[in-house]
Amino acid sequence: MIRADLVLSGFREVATLAAGPVPRLGPAMEELGRVEDGAVAIDAGRFVFVGTSRAAAREVRLRSGGRRIEMDGSCAVPGFVDPHTHLLFAGDRSGEVAAKVRGASYLEIARRGGGIFSTVRATRRASTAALFDAAEARLRRMAAWGTTTAEVKSGYALTHAGELRLLSLVPRLARRTGLRLVPTYLGAHAVPPEFAGRPGAYVEEIVGRTLPEVAHGRRARFADVFCEPGFFSPTQASRILTAARELGLGLRVHAEEFRHSGGARLAARLGAASADHLLAATDDDLARLAERGVTATLLPVTPFASLAPAPPRGRDFVEAGVPVALGSDLSPNSWVEGMPVVLAHAVYAARLTPAEALTAATVNAAHSLGLGGAAGTIAVGRDADLAVFPVRAVEEIPDRIGVAPTAVYRQGICLSSR
Amino acid sequence: MIRADLVLSGFREVATLAAGPVPRLGPAMEELGRVEDGAVAIDAGRFVFVGTSRAAAREVRLRSGGRRIEMDGSCAVPGFVDPHTHLLFAGDRSGEVAAKVRGASYLEIARRGGGIFSTVRATRRASTAALFDAAEARLRRMAAWGTTTAEVKSGYALTHAGELRLLSLVPRLARRTGLRLVPTYLGAHAVPPEFAGRPGAYVEEIVGRTLPEVAHGRRARFADVFCEPGFFSPTQASRILTAARELGLGLRVHAEEFRHSGGARLAARLGAASADHLLAATDDDLARLAERGVTATLLPVTPFASLAPAPPRGRDFVEAGVPVALGSDLSPNSWVEGMPVVLAHAVYAARLTPAEALTAATVNAAHSLGLGGAAGTIAVGRDADLAVFPVRAVEEIPDRIGVAPTAVYRQGICLSSR
Repeated sequence: MIRADLVLSGFREVATLAAGPVPRLGPAMEELGRVEDGAVAIDAGRFVFVGTSRAAAREVRLRSGGRRIEMDGSCAVPGFVDPHTHLLFAGDRSGEVAAKVRGASYLEIARRGGGIFSTVRATRRASTAALFDAAEARLRRMAAWGTTTAEVKSGYALTHAGELRLLSLVPRLARRTGLRLVPTYLGAHAVPPEFAGRPGAYVEEIVGRTLPEVAHGRRARFADVFCEPGFFSPTQASRILTAARELGLGLRVHAEEFRHSGGARLAARLGAASADHLLAATDDDLARLAERGVTATLLPVTPFASLAPAPPRGRDFVEAGVPVALGSDLSPNSWVEGMPVVLAHAVYAARLTPAEALTAATVNAAHSLGLGGAAGTIAVGRDADLAVFPVRAVEEIPDRIGVAPTAVYRQGICLSSR
Repeated sequence: MIRADLVLSGFREVATLAAGPVPRLGPAMEELGRVEDGAVAIDAGRFVFVGTSRAAAREVRLRSGGRRIEMDGSCAVPGFVDPHTHLLFAGDRSGEVAAKVRGASYLEIARRGGGIFSTVRATRRASTAALFDAAEARLRRMAAWGTTTAEVKSGYALTHAGELRLLSLVPRLARRTGLRLVPTYLGAHAVPPEFAGRPGAYVEEIVGRTLPEVAHGRRARFADVFCEPGFFSPTQASRILTAARELGLGLRVHAEEFRHSGGARLAARLGAASADHLLAATDDDLARLAERGVTATLLPVTPFASLAPAPPRGRDFVEAGVPVALGSDLSPNSWVEGMPVVLAHAVYAARLTPAEALTAATVNAAHSLGLGGAAGTIAVGRDADLAVFPVRAVEEIPDRIGVAPTAVYRQGICLSSR
């Protein structure tokens, strides 16, 4: 007999995502490991049973004081894993939007004091308490949308001390909210004003000073670089990422967002965990990413919110056998907190199927964060992270654009219910 | 001294939408009637005070047992008015999505038993209780997203008795949920299988039998026609809409969604309350709608969810002086319940400014439903319908894609809070 302190039974469908290799590639991305009339049992924060409601009734006994909840007609998926967020920032850029929709370019907006450096100014000025509170509120809303694990990038301070201050918030935010957070050092988000015209000097500050402190203090698990003309060249990115790798950090790359410049190729050469954005990636890039098993983290809301000409070509990535993950890219420029909205864009803009999108936002995203054995699936022994949706089949989650979960559990604790 | 049973004060910003003519046209769509450090007072379901928090402290006295709530840092807008929903249906079509993203055409999907007629079959088969329960759940989620008034179309039964059954649910749903619902008869949504090849006979059934019963029984306030090649021609639509007008019903038209066919021109000629979709509308159509003051109800999520080539060209409508409203088009083919998601698409796809989008989703949408004096604004004497958002400026509502309200009030009653 299995003992449990919480049993959730009577799901119309549980998508466990627990069958098959990690990451899922190509046609295997459609296999959700469904259990009809499903149930899960949870004890001390972990799944101790996953199966049918009938088997749960037979095999699981509630501990004294435990609770059984009937989930009639709803469906469960693993808690979402959001593998790309710029969570830590102050201010907002909603004042730029009217100019953007009327056709103002990025450069015009920057000239008026907008764009990324307005966020850098606001973030530098903000108190640590204000940054913490804003990030906490965002995380709570992300959790209410079903996210139980998130990557969190620094990158809006662009000074040695400022980036470390941002990273120091991540473990505190994880303790406060209960979410699993994975910190990434993105000092190379842009060349800060202090180093204008001297990007090489900034790269050397990152490599010689900040990266070692990040790595030795275990402030981040990954290093990331914005590899793009006008930001960091593939050569500069390679310098930073190679140093990061030698220090034991995993690698992520913002690659081929605006123009094709070699970031995806670099990610493949270095065996990065993830190459992200990839709007301008070529078929050759896709082949290299597939060959090296580098996850393509697609961020389909970003081109929408940037009025960019086209979404990521998700189908091509799946068909090329690239491991595909989905992220929000939560930032002042793409302010989306809800993974269900991201899933809708993955389907209707990037043309993943609903099942592929669910795989990309759970087990594949976890894999890209080095959590393939820990997050993104509903399986015995794993943290009991799941999101419950008011739908009749899990395919409806992307299809019902922006549908919100009725309950979200992290380690068996209900973080949000309505 | 003003007496109130509820005071909400300390809003960073209240967008009243209460200044200026109704509907708002062109540049006036940007004027939101903001009150900084705002407050509202509510008594017996209506606003009795709208102004600054300081003035509220001076001028408003709470009744015994009344309540004052501090809204630190959040912003309020009028409850959204969703002027185009196909709320009443059974089943879902999420199973078609994988084929759609892989490139299957509407006709192929119809051949496999999908498309609108699969919804018609499911709706006809569904019990009245099941239809009611599904619609009630949708309305509660819409309300949690900030919608306090919604238009509700029939149109998935396509029989005399079936359409009347759908319309009969609307007043019951309004009583149950507290929302203000406006019923529209859309018998002319498609030619039903029983009349295949005999569309004229179906038009005559509508005109001779169903419309008179709808009008005399006050089952609907509007009649609507899907005017599109393969559905109803402008001549057939004109026959139906002219008869509806003679019976005292207001007119709405599904016009120019897939191909240009004359629906917008017809709406202008008949002085319809609204022409909806308008993806293929010409500049000449825009000029005619502007001249006759016909509201263009734009539905920017629909082309996204239909993988259609382009969104509505919102900026052109605003600049042509057409009254612009925004709707969800909630249906199995465009299943979005949250107006904040619609607002994001209005901005980032249709290129309205955030302020224009807020105007379109409140006061202008109310105008198109004949409720210009009753809904869509925060003003003394009006129903106390408002949505509270965790943002620092109301422009952030479209910008923060899919942001959910922290509280929603309808006639002063809190329908949803988190």
